[in-house]
Parts: sequence; structure tokens; C-alpha cells
Amino acid sequence: MVKHVRVAAFGEVMMRLQVPGYQLLSQAGSLDYSFSGTGVNVGSALASFGYDASLITRLPGNALGDAAAASLRKLGLSTADVIRGGSSLGMYFLESGFGARPSRVTYAGRQASSFNTAPDDAYDYAMLAAGIDVVHFCGITLAMNDAVRRHMLELAAAVKAKGGTVVFDCNYRPGHWGEDGYTKAKPYYERMLRLADIVMMNERDAMCILGMPTTKTDRLEQLTELIPQAACRFGIAVIAGTHRTINSGNTHTLQGFLYKHEAFSFSDQLTFAVYDRIGAGDAFASGIIHGELASFEAERTVRFAAAAAMLAHTVAGDTPMSSENEILHAMTNANGDVIR
Amino acid sequence: MVKHVRVAAFGEVMMRLQVPGYQLLSQAGSLDYSFSGTGVNVGSALASFGYDASLITRLPGNALGDAAAASLRKLGLSTADVIRGGSSLGMYFLESGFGARPSRVTYAGRQASSFNTAPDDAYDYAMLAAGIDVVHFCGITLAMNDAVRRHMLELAAAVKAKGGTVVFDCNYRPGHWGEDGYTKAKPYYERMLRLADIVMMNERDAMCILGMPTTKTDRLEQLTELIPQAACRFGIAVIAGTHRTINSGNTHTLQGFLYKHEAFSFSDQLTFAVYDRIGAGDAFASGIIHGELASFEAERTVRFAAAAAMLAHTVAGDTPMSSENEILHAMTNANGDVIR
Amino acid sequence: MVKHVRVAAFGEVMMRLQVPGYQLLSQAGSLDYSFSGTGVNVGSALASFGYDASLITRLPGNALGDAAAASLRKLGLSTADVIRGGSSLGMYFLESGFGARPSRVTYAGRQASSFNTAPDDAYDYAMLAAGIDVVHFCGITLAMNDAVRRHMLELAAAVKAKGGTVVFDCNYRPGHWGEDGYTKAKPYYERMLRLADIVMMNERDAMCILGMPTTKTDRLEQLTELIPQAACRFGIAVIAGTHRTINSGNTHTLQGFLYKHEAFSFSDQLTFAVYDRIGAGDAFASGIIHGELASFEAERTVRFAAAAAMLAHTVAGDTPMSSENEILHAMTNANGDVIR
Amino acid sequence: MVKHVRVAAFGEVMMRLQVPGYQLLSQAGSLDYSFSGTGVNVGSALASFGYDASLITRLPGNALGDAAAASLRKLGLSTADVIRGGSSLGMYFLESGFGARPSRVTYAGRQASSFNTAPDDAYDYAMLAAGIDVVHFCGITLAMNDAVRRHMLELAAAVKAKGGTVVFDCNYRPGHWGEDGYTKAKPYYERMLRLADIVMMNERDAMCILGMPTTKTDRLEQLTELIPQAACRFGIAVIAGTHRTINSGNTHTLQGFLYKHEAFSFSDQLTFAVYDRIGAGDAFASGIIHGELASFEAERTVRFAAAAAMLAHTVAGDTPMSSENEILHAMTNANGDVIR
Amino acid sequence: MVKHVRVAAFGEVMMRLQVPGYQLLSQAGSLDYSFSGTGVNVGSALASFGYDASLITRLPGNALGDAAAASLRKLGLSTADVIRGGSSLGMYFLESGFGARPSRVTYAGRQASSFNTAPDDAYDYAMLAAGIDVVHFCGITLAMNDAVRRHMLELAAAVKAKGGTVVFDCNYRPGHWGEDGYTKAKPYYERMLRLADIVMMNERDAMCILGMPTTKTDRLEQLTELIPQAACRFGIAVIAGTHRTINSGNTHTLQGFLYKHEAFSFSDQLTFAVYDRIGAGDAFASGIIHGELASFEAERTVRFAAAAAMLAHTVAGDTPMSSENEILHAMTNANGDVIR
Amino acid sequence: MVKHVRVAAFGEVMMRLQVPGYQLLSQAGSLDYSFSGTGVNVGSALASFGYDASLITRLPGNALGDAAAASLRKLGLSTADVIRGGSSLGMYFLESGFGARPSRVTYAGRQASSFNTAPDDAYDYAMLAAGIDVVHFCGITLAMNDAVRRHMLELAAAVKAKGGTVVFDCNYRPGHWGEDGYTKAKPYYERMLRLADIVMMNERDAMCILGMPTTKTDRLEQLTELIPQAACRFGIAVIAGTHRTINSGNTHTLQGFLYKHEAFSFSDQLTFAVYDRIGAGDAFASGIIHGELASFEAERTVRFAAAAAMLAHTVAGDTPMSSENEILHAMTNANGDVIR
Repeated sequence: MVKHVRVAAFGEVMMRLQVPGYQLLSQAGSLDYSFSGTGVNVGSALASFGYDASLITRLPGNALGDAAAASLRKLGLSTADVIRGGSSLGMYFLESGFGARPSRVTYAGRQASSFNTAPDDAYDYAMLAAGIDVVHFCGITLAMNDAVRRHMLELAAAVKAKGGTVVFDCNYRPGHWGEDGYTKAKPYYERMLRLADIVMMNERDAMCILGMPTTKTDRLEQLTELIPQAACRFGIAVIAGTHRTINSGNTHTLQGFLYKHEAFSFSDQLTFAVYDRIGAGDAFASGIIHGELASFEAERTVRFAAAAAMLAHTVAGDTPMSSENEILHAMTNANGDVIR
Repeated sequence: MVKHVRVAAFGEVMMRLQVPGYQLLSQAGSLDYSFSGTGVNVGSALASFGYDASLITRLPGNALGDAAAASLRKLGLSTADVIRGGSSLGMYFLESGFGARPSRVTYAGRQASSFNTAPDDAYDYAMLAAGIDVVHFCGITLAMNDAVRRHMLELAAAVKAKGGTVVFDCNYRPGHWGEDGYTKAKPYYERMLRLADIVMMNERDAMCILGMPTTKTDRLEQLTELIPQAACRFGIAVIAGTHRTINSGNTHTLQGFLYKHEAFSFSDQLTFAVYDRIGAGDAFASGIIHGELASFEAERTVRFAAAAAMLAHTVAGDTPMSSENEILHAMTNANGDVIR
Repeated sequence: MVKHVRVAAFGEVMMRLQVPGYQLLSQAGSLDYSFSGTGVNVGSALASFGYDASLITRLPGNALGDAAAASLRKLGLSTADVIRGGSSLGMYFLESGFGARPSRVTYAGRQASSFNTAPDDAYDYAMLAAGIDVVHFCGITLAMNDAVRRHMLELAAAVKAKGGTVVFDCNYRPGHWGEDGYTKAKPYYERMLRLADIVMMNERDAMCILGMPTTKTDRLEQLTELIPQAACRFGIAVIAGTHRTINSGNTHTLQGFLYKHEAFSFSDQLTFAVYDRIGAGDAFASGIIHGELASFEAERTVRFAAAAAMLAHTVAGDTPMSSENEILHAMTNANGDVIR
Repeated sequence: MVKHVRVAAFGEVMMRLQVPGYQLLSQAGSLDYSFSGTGVNVGSALASFGYDASLITRLPGNALGDAAAASLRKLGLSTADVIRGGSSLGMYFLESGFGARPSRVTYAGRQASSFNTAPDDAYDYAMLAAGIDVVHFCGITLAMNDAVRRHMLELAAAVKAKGGTVVFDCNYRPGHWGEDGYTKAKPYYERMLRLADIVMMNERDAMCILGMPTTKTDRLEQLTELIPQAACRFGIAVIAGTHRTINSGNTHTLQGFLYKHEAFSFSDQLTFAVYDRIGAGDAFASGIIHGELASFEAERTVRFAAAAAMLAHTVAGDTPMSSENEILHAMTNANGDVIR
Repeated sequence: MVKHVRVAAFGEVMMRLQVPGYQLLSQAGSLDYSFSGTGVNVGSALASFGYDASLITRLPGNALGDAAAASLRKLGLSTADVIRGGSSLGMYFLESGFGARPSRVTYAGRQASSFNTAPDDAYDYAMLAAGIDVVHFCGITLAMNDAVRRHMLELAAAVKAKGGTVVFDCNYRPGHWGEDGYTKAKPYYERMLRLADIVMMNERDAMCILGMPTTKTDRLEQLTELIPQAACRFGIAVIAGTHRTINSGNTHTLQGFLYKHEAFSFSDQLTFAVYDRIGAGDAFASGIIHGELASFEAERTVRFAAAAAMLAHTVAGDTPMSSENEILHAMTNANGDVIR
Repeated sequence: MVKHVRVAAFGEVMMRLQVPGYQLLSQAGSLDYSFSGTGVNVGSALASFGYDASLITRLPGNALGDAAAASLRKLGLSTADVIRGGSSLGMYFLESGFGARPSRVTYAGRQASSFNTAPDDAYDYAMLAAGIDVVHFCGITLAMNDAVRRHMLELAAAVKAKGGTVVFDCNYRPGHWGEDGYTKAKPYYERMLRLADIVMMNERDAMCILGMPTTKTDRLEQLTELIPQAACRFGIAVIAGTHRTINSGNTHTLQGFLYKHEAFSFSDQLTFAVYDRIGAGDAFASGIIHGELASFEAERTVRFAAAAAMLAHTVAGDTPMSSENEILHAMTNANGDVIR
């Protein structure tokens, strides 16, 4: 176990409000709630791998904020860096799909959340950076507003400046950027990529956000052409990501890749039954980060990350819940009987 | 959207009492309840497509009737034509099957329901017909008793007389007719078919209920031989229906057909995971009716109806809940990622 | 413990479908179900006191009947005398009241139940009587129809003939008898009272059903005048019953009486918080029967029965669940701390 | 029954998210949800009394809005005047108190709701007014923002102009107006009061919002001094309201008053167990409106309204669910046994 | 139906505490509980096939024991042979797996259970044996402690001595025996096998527990070599068992075998969707026992047992719930539509 | 807020398994679970008051232990001092009483828990003491076994030795000590009292456990005579406790006392509705500890502690959930309206 590496994630805590079972919001009368977010998910997974993990965020100073903070602690995250203020959380309502009917997410109140309305002096970047070895950021945060973007970039710069490692997950969400989203997003992504040491991205990010040209049409050929260029242009040590195929019958196929030291490593193509797809990308990212921090061989890292992602599809909620041992077990044992 | 066409359905409201999850009635302690029925399902789907939809039925004048009426309104149905009287609802208990274990329905109290004990003067056929452009009937109602059959045939005749469109879904249920059921049912079905403009039936109905002979053994050949004969004999403009195959592993395969202007149109064979099979036929019927009323091309109508039926298998409860946009989307996109 | 006395109850099994918490049927979406009935409640309580207890009834031969039978066994009742046939159970929907809003019961499908449609040769009275020392009947059964009344009176006569004890609880329900109910009911009640050794009744039954005159206006004076007359007229060894007052704030006050050997015994007036009022009268009856069979002093019997009734108001469901020790404990300890 | 009076309410639909039972948001994992609001509650109650009731509001064009609209229909409200647009609903989280621990409401996302962000041309006041006989407004709406206040005052003026009746419930909420709230609120309240025919207010509103002076210290004396002055100053035909006392042990005491034709009428002081206090004031208002429209005697009106309010405390959810018959019954029968 | 054969099972009643849905114990807040155990499962299945079935066990004399006893009765088991004493039940917590994530069982408090701490004189072997025609034992019980092993062997010997049939299911659980488990287990298994007439075992039991050598590597070849040797060495009339393969996508493949009169019979290889795998082996055993007692042909017995096992995978809980008719139906109909 | 005082509690984590609502274990099918214990409750309350709070205990190294640890973190407790080992947790099943029916607790598996089977070298007393300013112990732990008692006394001595404060709550539970319990308990209690600075006890502890004689019969007179003697004999700086009366109608009356500097302070007699009585004593203790650490006046301390205890009766679960502000508010406001 790799201990005493201090990992932090900067990001919004979302309240997930899920219609139970497979009902619609207009059919049901109750909702299951939990608190998640990219930072929560990655940080919590790293905490379960043995790291000191902390979340840097802003929560409302009311019962909603109390519930969110309690939930973060339960997930193993330190709340010492959580600021309290404002009155609201970003929320999303989830209606689970089944087979031919896709899952549906309805966002509510995100711009007015305590995190997205944090005042200019909300965070003491230097003090935070002093307590961080590795910090994780997510592209969704870039889509919010100028103030949050500024906090994000300043904190990334502060950690970089004092020698820490910056992780950035591109995580581009078209719905959040609106029309001409790629054009709006590009400059911010470029700034973050220049600060980042470990990046989650794939060929679509390279083409769409960064506008990198290619004549290739095959996804894998695009990947192997563009990712090395991106790593080179922005000085990124490690780039990792996944290719996902959605099959009929509630199964997905996933393959992870890792580009490092001018070489690609790939996981097997994993095909598996899907219970809860949301947050699986964060499980992959946490696996990559752990592999890097624990100095796994590149191939082991990407296989570990892919297995972590696979298991995250089988767990309820956004946040990965599998231990390192369970992931290692799943790397070799595809289908097991009851464990007694 | 096609508005201001006034659609009505005549039929019983059933109380569905479902054992949650996959337990049996002798294992569980609670039931999820909702109110459905062929008329409810078809009318509600048409309301969601933009029609003024009303249910013609009789509900008890007590808390059960209040709950049923509230539920109809929630589904978008007008309750202006609902009569209150009697004291009971037809009910069915549903134990959901899993894989090799089929679902099991246990009916209770159907003959004593307010609908099936409506007095002779319960409905003012002429007044009702005056407010109806299209009316939907179901063969299950024919199986109940003489009084209900009389109401059904009189109302159909009244709508026909004033120039409205009559839809009839054969929906033959062996368990309701008992021994020698086909023989008992035949005269009533023939009367309804003569009044009907749009009919849901397939080759089995033609052979078993109507006693139409064929030397063919293949299901599709039987269909293409008998359906045109039936359309001709009873003067039916449109006949539509489905062929269903139940596969192992909780998936079904479905293909829709539409016979009109002396030609058949077919949907693709759709194979999909099944969550709740009950009521899916009503989704198909609502798709056919919508296609006809909105003057879709025949092939588009049957493909729309088949996609509506497919989606209805993925939704909780008997009543279809998919919007026109969702059905159109499913006609081209078989398996989708989370919609955010 | 008094063992090897064979007690049987004859009566309908009802399916209780309760809206959870304090919602109405038009607000909720699920129901808690259980199986009860006067015979079930009295028999189950006597089983818990150590008697061999059996229910004589008719249950449907389907999943509803299977669930009911399993529930009877769980309550300690033998199902050896249960006949299977017909297809339906009597049901009642319960919306729990709160304070100023009374609880509301909606019956459904009672006349069509397997019990109330038992054919003439359904029960072998002589064979049943041979296995019974004490048999319990309830006035609600008298309200159903001629066939059931006949079964009830024949069985009572058969038990009486072979020297067994007949218990009869008047339990008059105005809603079941309809207009002129008392007049309709009187002859049947008189026949049952002539067969009965132990009877649950009070002064209202004497005045309203039996038409016994009194010039008294005070409830207690009416009781002490009429009950001895009734005991004398019908040759009843033991008559017992309760006076109930419904207070504001979800509490009731209850006093039990017992008339035997030409003398009255009374319990204290018990005032207690009420959780579930239905079935509490059956707990009282079971306490009287136990006291008589176990040869308690009259005062102890009525105090035991009153405490049993009080506890039954604090237990979920119709069926009493308190053990003899818990009732004895409650006779002296009104309010207790947590029992660890 | 008073039919074909067209009643409308203008107001926000709130999503109520209630922690089940008596848990806190930081303890539980699920929420029961429903859709309410002053307009919803008053309109729904009037619909149950037999009026044609409609809600004028703006709902988001997504799954949240669909669920809210379905819920309005279930409550008997027409959604023909509901505009769809924006993306969010006002929400409130409810943690139910018990005894010494008060209930706690946490609002979220109210300013960003579809209703509170309706554009200037959202509503066609004249067209709406043409279809309204009586319209209901609530002071909470006045606290939102300038745009909503303008919609509210314009619609009130339009209804007034064409001869309709305007109902206004002062419903001042300190938390929504913030510091110096009374000063900010006064001018808007004065404008609404001048347009209103029926007003819900009490002496505290007169003193605090309107700044009316009194030397009296007793609540009742203040009331009888100030309410006639307010009625006179603003030309209000009917003023009604309640005095509430919160007792220990989960009971409240309530007395209603009605001032009309220069005379006061009072209900009895009702003391009752409280299950769900929210929305009870709207039940009172609906009782007053019904009494006025149905031309009850003043005393009957206020007794009806107080009984409606009492029952609303015993019903789950914000929205009153009692029928006219149940309220009339509760006016005379304080505590009843099970209704079978 | 085969009646009046008195079947008994000797074994521990476990309290199963299952996390609902697919959550983990660290995510959820409630547990579904039921009472099971090999003896419970086999006995209950045999009761549903029409045998008089009884459980011989020891339950705590408190609320846990009361709940367990009520549950046994509900499952059709007689509790006449249940002893009450001690204070605890063996428990297991079940977190249901999904796809690539296996189910996880966590045992608690098993050694301290009332069953496993039964005193030396707890059971009257001779009296028990006098009332038993067939008795069932399970290898899990052998793993507990010396006292329980002694009870088990004495009871088996007593039944054998008076001419009854002894059934033994090897059911070796590595986790219960600990290090060198096979060596520890061997002498006890050998003693039981010598007493047994019908045995559930397969080639792995023969090799691992009994140490029988083979040069074969194929599972089927090992089976056909070793099972006849075992039958011969221990004088076992019937040996049966299954080969299971766990596939991806939540399906299993199962084939049953039966060795009797020096010949093997095999069922088809059944592949089916799995809902709840636990207890399916007991359903197989109950099918074998029924086939033997009802004198089925060997092939019919093994096909019946395999179908019973298949259905048990589709039912919630450990205990098989399928009737004989449902199993016979499943032997021929793999996938069925809703049964109405 | 008083921060950076390091508080620790030593004690067992219990799994509370509560039957939902007011059902019995033999009626229900699900259980709500949470993790509590005297140390958990006191520590968590102190964490919410702003202290650094840690639990010293031993949890199993499996899913049960993971869930318990997650729960402790959620409650604000540090798990840095939690040892993992063994395989089981102490459990208790709770059936909630109602009115005349008392709540019932059934313990299971307590002696075999990881805490009660901690090996001799499980805790490093000196290292733990170095990080503790105040440590809390409970008399229940004394009742377990020699090994645990030794751990407890050694840790108390180590904290005392390095100048920390020792808190001891007598919390005598007759059921845990068995016959002659007081005699067995006395020497251990005396040892703990000599080490303790702050003690929760009352006159019954003094009389029964310590055998202190008195001629008084009034509870209050016994208290004022004996508590000063106990303080003197064992050198205890602060002794506090409560007198509780259980009223009918689900209310309790509670009065707190505090003896310090040779003087008594008393809270008011508080009477309040009770929702969940378990753990309320721990809320009182946490209030006393906070008052002492924050240097409240004695009377304020005891009033704060009594209000904390009162609120704890209104909160679901064993663990107090009220913030310091809520307790301060409840000290003056007995019954409040909804807080919005």
C-alpha cells in the first residue's frame, strides 16, 4: 500500500437524486440520494487504495451541506479543506434506462451552487498547495463560469509551482458548453493541459477540443497518431483513456490505453454487464493515478485501471467502491461464484 | 403534433397489484399498485402524442374509484366521461418472472367490478359519440358478460353512425372465455369486426376465432394469406399486429406488420431486453393509430408502432410512457449512452 | 400452559391491503398486505397461548390462496381443515387515520370470495366436530349469505351435539347488513345465541339486534339490566364485552366486563395510545376464552382480556401478537422502559 | 356542489423533497417527493369541492416539468394554462420534527426556477383573465423578484378589470424578504390589497407589513381593532385568518376568524394532533373561498375553513386531500372510530 | 402426490441478512432478512411436494427464535421437533454481486448459535428416529464442532438402526474447515457416508475429501471413474450431484447426474439467467430425494432435480419455492410468456 | 467553539438492527441498520460540538467492519485508532414499542465480537494516551470479560498518568452481569471510579453497585446524601446524572443534576414526546463533558446536557444528532413551528 502521499481533488459535489428501479420521475414518489462528482469519485477511490485524500470544494452552510460533508467523510475523504457558504448544491435527477431505453439525467441548480458561486477569495491556493502532493481536476469544472475556472487554474498553477503533480481529466460535456462549445472550451483546455502531468483524454478530445487534424478514419489509428502529438505539444508525461462500445442487452465493451515514454500500452477489450454506468470513467482515472504513484509497469497500470472501470459499472452509485484486492482479483477472474 | 382529434377508449380500469422485485406473493409483504387496462394504456399513449384523450368507463364511488380517477388524470386522460357507481375494481396480482420462471398473473374480482356491473342505462351512447372522433375497443371486454358486450357494441355503432373511426384490438384471452371459448367468442368478434376501421389481429385470431381455414404451416405465410381475406370479408381498412418470439435470457424478438390498401408493410425484427412485458401490445396499437391519424406512410407507421412496443417493454408498469420524440429516436438508435 | 385443547375457528380470511404510513389510496403507490379475519385473529392468539388451533375456511386454489395459507401457518394455525377452491379472497383496503381524521376501510370482492361461495357440500361437519373441543364463530359471517349462514349453523350444531363448547362473537357490522339490518339479522343471531356457551356482546347488541327493551339511558345501567336477561333467555354461560371511548389525541379508553354465574366482573378502565385499532376486539375475545379454558377467576379473566385488547392496539396488523407473559406483565406495568 | 365557477391560482410549483419518517438529511438515503405550492394547494382543494380549477405557472420543459404537470393533473388541476420553459423547479427539503425538535425546511434553487425566470411576455394576461372568475395569489410570490411581481400585479389587475374576484393570501415569510423585509414588502402588499376582494391576513400582517399602529397588547384585541381598519383602507370585502398555538406533545390549537360586512365570526378553538403542518393555511383559505362562492353563512364559512385546516394537519403532504363531506363531518365529529 | 412419508432434516437455521438490490453493506441502510439453511431448504421443498416435513434444530428462546420458528411454519415445516434454548442464531450478510462483481457472504456468530451450542442431552435420538422415515444431513454441520458432529452422527445412526433412509449432502465449505480442512474433515465424512443411503457428492469431493486417486484430468471422466468407487466403498445406493459452469452475463450452466444400480443418468446441460444462486443445490437435492421416494425412473429424477435447481436460481431467497407442477412444466418449456 | 481538545472514547461498536415502524421481528421482513455504542454516541456528539474526536475500538476485518468504519467517519469520528481484526460485531435487534407495549432489545453475538476478543497486545496504551486529552469509558464494557476490563483499566490509567481527564459512565446493565451482578461488578467499578474525573452515576448506582447505605426513601434525598459521599470517597471532581419518569402516552420526564465543588445544580424537569429513547443518556453525558471542557457555569452545563438528552429522544437512532445551536435553542424554546 502506498501511504502518506497526499492527494487532493478540486471539484463540485453533486447531489444525485435517482428514481428507484426503472421508473420515471413522473411515475415514482421517492428518490435515492447520494453525493458524488468527479473529484469525489476519484478521491474516494484513491482513499480506498491507501492514500490520504482530501476534497477541495465549497458546500452550503445548511442541512444539505451537512449531509454532503458527512457523505464525503463516509467515503474516506478528508473535509478539512471544505469551505462552507452559499445555500445550494448542484443536483441531478437520474432515471435509469433499461436496454433500448437510455438513462436520462436532468440537471438542476448547478450554476447557483455553493461551489460555482464561491467568492474570489474563497480558497487560499498557496496554503492548499502546501498540503498536496497530487491534485486532480476535471474538465466539467472548466465549463461552469469564469470564477470557477480562475480558481481551478490558480490552484493548478500553485501545486505545479511547488513541485506537485497535476492530473487533468478532459471530460468534455457538450451539454454544459452549449453552442460553439469546442471553440469556447479550447483556450481553457489548453491552459490546463500545459499545467498537467497526467491527462485523461482520447482522440476525440484531440480532434474536437484541440482541433488537431487527422486524415485517419479509424478510431484506433486516430488515437495512435494524435495522442503522441498532444503529449508532445503540451508536455504531458502520461495520457490515458478508454474506448467504449455500447452493445445491446445491457453490456458494454471497454478498452483502456496508456501513453507514456513514447509508447502505448493497452488493456484487453473487456465486455461486461452494466448496472450503473455513471462514474466509471473516474474509476479508470483513479486506477491510472494509483498505477503511476505506485510505479506499476505501464501495462499493469492500464489493465488495473480498466478492471477498476469494469467493476465500477457493477456497483450502485457514481463512486467506485472496489478495493485494490477486488480489482486485482477481477484482472484475472472474469466471473466468480459467491465469495463465502 | 396532431391536436384536437378527440380520441376515446372504452374499457375497464384494472388495479394492478405487483409484488416488488422478483418475490412471490407468499414471500413478500407489500405490493406496488397502479391502474391500467387496454383503454387506459392506449388512451394515455395517444394523449402523450398530443390528442385529446378520454376514457369511457365506470369506477366505484369510493376511495378505490377516487384513486383510479386521479391516476387516469395523471396519465393525461380526461375523466369527464367516467361514471361513478358500484363498489369494486377488477384487480390482478402480478408476480414478475425471471428467466426460466415465467411471470404469473392472478385475477380477482373482475366480474363484480363497477365496469362489469354497469346498469343498462349507464352510458348515453349518442352523447358520447357526439364528442368522439376515434374510439378504441378491446376484445377482453367482449369476454366479460352480456351487459358489457351490449354497451360496447352499441357505443361502437353510435360512433360509426355519426362518422367516427372505430378501432378494435382482438386481444383474445383464452383464460377469460373458458372452455369452447373460440366458439363462444366468434359471433361477438364478427359483429365488432364489421364495425371496425382499424383492427389489431394476426393469423392466429383469423384461424382460431374466425375459423378461417389455411393449408399453410408457416406463420408468415398464414398471415399473408388470411389477413387480406379478413380485411375483405369484414370491410376493414387497416389491420395490424405483431409476431413475438420469446428468447432465453430475458429478451424478446418482435416484428410488426400493417395491411392497408391491399399491401403489407413490415417493421424490422427487433430484439431487445424485456423489463415489463405487460401492456406492450397497447403501445403497438397506439403507434398504429397515431400513424394513421397523422397520415404517416404505412412503413413509417409500422416501424413507429414497433419501436413504441419495444420501448414499452423497458418501462415499468402496463402503460406506455415514451414520448413521440423518444420513439422516433429509438427507431434509429438501438442502444444509447446516458442522455445528459 | 393449557395444551391439547383443540380450538377451531370458522370464518373468512381477509386480505388486508394497507396504505403505508398515513397516506391515502389516491396519494400512495404501494400497499402492505397481510391476511386476517376474526377467526384468524382469535385462533392465532389462542395458538400463542398454547392451544392446538385450527382454522376452518375455504381459500382460493391459486397464488392468493397459497399466500394466505402460508400466512396462517406462520401465525401458528393449522391449515389441515382449510379447503381450497374458488378464485378470490375478500379484501379490504385500509387508510390509517390520524387524530381528527378517522381510519377508512374500503371492502372489495367479499361476496365473490372462495369462503362466501363455498358449495353446499364443502365441509364435513361431523368429521370437523370430532376434532374440535372449542369452536369460535363471528357475527360478521352471519351477514354474508344464506349458504355461509347454513354452514355456520350446521357446524355450531355439530360441535354442540358432540359436547364441544361454542363461542360466538356478535360483532354486528351495520354496513354489511344494509337497510333494516337489525330486523334481517335478528333470527340468525337468535339461533346462534341458543347454540353458544360463551358470547361476546354488549347492551347495544341486546337492544338493537335482539330488540330487548330498557328504560335506562346510562350505558352501564343498560348493560347490567340486559345482559343477565340475555344470558337467561338464550342459556348462555358466559357473556363478555367491552365499553370503548375514543378520546382526542390518538388515545382510547376501554373497560371489559364478564358476566357469569349471575355476577359481573369488570376490568379497570384502561386508557392507552392507539397504533392499530383493528382486531383489538378479537384479542379481548381470545383473552376471555383462554381465561375460561384455563379456569381463571372471573376477575382475572376480564383483566387479562382487557390487557390483551390494550396491547393489541399497540401492535401492527389485525392479529394479536402478544404472548401470555407479555399480557400478564401489562396487567401490572402500564408503561415500561426498553426491555433489554 | 358549486360547478362551472372557473377558479385559477397563480404561483410557483415547488418540489417537496421529504426525508422519510423522522430522520435527518444527513442520516437518510431516500426522499419522498411531491409537487405543491400555495396555488397548487388552494386550487386542488377547490377542484375537490367541484370547481373548475386551473394553475397559471411556468414549468421546465424537461422530466422535472413533466412530473410536476402529471402531479397537477392528478390533483384535479387543469394544466391548460401552464407554460413550459426554463430548466428548473424551486425545491425544498423537509426534515420532519418530532415534539421538541421542530421541522426544518431547506430551500434550494428557488430564484433560478422556471417560474421565477419567466420572461416578460410569458403570460397573456387578457386571455387568461377572460377564462377566470376567481383568481388566487400568495404573498410568497411577491417576495421573489421584480419580474414575477409584475406578472402577479398585471394578472390581478386584468382579472379585476373584467369583473373577476381577486383573492390574496398575505403569507409573509421573513426568510424570503431578508433584512428590512417589512419595509421592502410594504408597497407591493399595498398594491395587492387594493386589488383584492378576499384577503387572508391577521393582526401581525397589519402591524408589521402595513405598519398599522395599535396600543393593544392582546392578540385578539389587536385583531378586532386593526382588521376593520385594513378592510376599510384597502376596500376589502372579506378578511379571514387564523390564530395558532403550538402545544407540547405534537398538538396545535387553531381558531379561525372571518371579517365581513363589518362583523367578525369565529370558529371554535380546535385542538388536534398534528401529522403534517405544511399547507394547512392553504386549506383554511380554500375553505373561506368555497364558503364565499357557495354563499355560506359567515359563521359556517369560518367553521368549515377551520375544520378544513384541522384535517389538513392530519394528511400527508402539503396539499389538502379532504372532501367537502369529510370536512362537514369533522365540523361535528371530533374523534371517530374506523369508517367501514 | 406422495404423502405420509415423514421426512426430517437436521441442521442449523441461519438468519440471512441481505443488502437490498446491488448495494454494499457500507452503502445501504437496510437489510432484508429471512431464515434458511440446508435443512430448511430441503425440508421446505419436500413439504411443497406433499411430504410431512419437520426440522430438527435448536432455536434461541427469544424474539429471534420466535421469528425463525414462524418462518419455518410459513415454509410448511413442522416445528414440533424444534428445541428452544440459547440466545443466538448463526447469521450471514449477503451483498449481491452483479456480472463481473461476485456476490459476497460474511458470516457472523455461527459458533455461538443455539444450534451449535446445544447441550449433550439436547436431542432424544430414539424418539426422533421413531417418527422419521427419511432424514437429511449436510456436510456444513460436520464443520461446526465436536458436539454438533456427535448429535449428527448419533441421529443418523438411530434412523439407520430403525430402518429409515439417511440422506447426506457432502457440501464441503473450505472456509469453515480452515487450514488442512480436507484432512480434518475426512474421518467425519467417512462415518457419515457409511450411514448414508442417498448422497450428494461429485468427483471433487471424492478426490479432495476422501483422497481418492485418479489419473484423469477431465471432470466428467473423473466423475465416472470415482463415483462408482465411492458408492461401492461406502455402500451408498444413490449418488447424485451437479456440474456447474459460471458464464459471463449473469448466466450459469448446470448439468445433473445420478448414479444408481451401477449406472449413470444425466440431465441436459441447462443454461439460464441467475437471480439468486444460493440454495440452488438444496433444490437439486430435494428433487433427487423426491424422485427416489416417488420411484421416478432415474433419468426423470435427475431431470426433475436439475429443473428444480434451475428454477431455484430464479427465485428470491435461499429456499426453493417452485411447486412440483412448475418444475414439471420447466422440464419441457424453457421460456414462457406471462401466465394469466 | 472549543477546538483542538482531543477527545477519545473506548468502547464497542454495536450493529443496531431495527425492525422498521412498530412491527415485531416475527412480522417484518427488513431491518434498518446503523452502528452505535456508548463511545460512538458520546464521541460523535463531541465531534459535532467541535472537538477532535476519535474512537478506540476493534472492528472485524471484513465487510461488516468496513461498513462500521465508514459509519464512524460519517458521524465525524476519526478511525485512526481503530484496530481491525476478528470477524464479528456485537449486534442488537430492536423492536420499537408503542405506548403500553415497551420496546424490546435482543442482543446477539456480543461476547464473540472483535472488540470483546481483542488479544492482550491489541492496544498500545502509551501511544494512545499520548494523543488524548479526555477519554470516555462506559460501565457496559466492564460487564464483558476480563480481557476487555484489563484493556479499559490500563488505558484509563495511562491517560490519567499523563495528565488527561478520565470520564466514566456507570451505565450498569443488569442483563449483562447476570446473577449476583452487583457483587461481581463492585470491584471493577471501584477501580474505575478511582481513576475518573467526571462520572455519570446516580443514587441507585451508589446504593446497588457500591453498596452505600442510606435510610432515606425519597429518590432525591438519596441522591443528595449519597453522591457527595461517592465524590469524596473516590476523589471525583464532577458527578452528573438524570432522573427519568416514564409517563403514559409516549412521553418521558427527565431532570438532570450536576454535583461539583460540593454543590448540586439541577435542570428543569423536562417533559417531552419520545421517538427513540436509546442513546439519550449518552447525549446527556456529552453535554456534561462539553460544559466542563468549555467552562460553562454548572447550571448552564446541566441545563445544556438535559436539553441535549431531550432532543436525543426526538432523533432517529442511538447517536445524538443535534448541533450546539439546536440544543441552545431548545433550552429556551420548548415547542417551535417549522423552521424555514
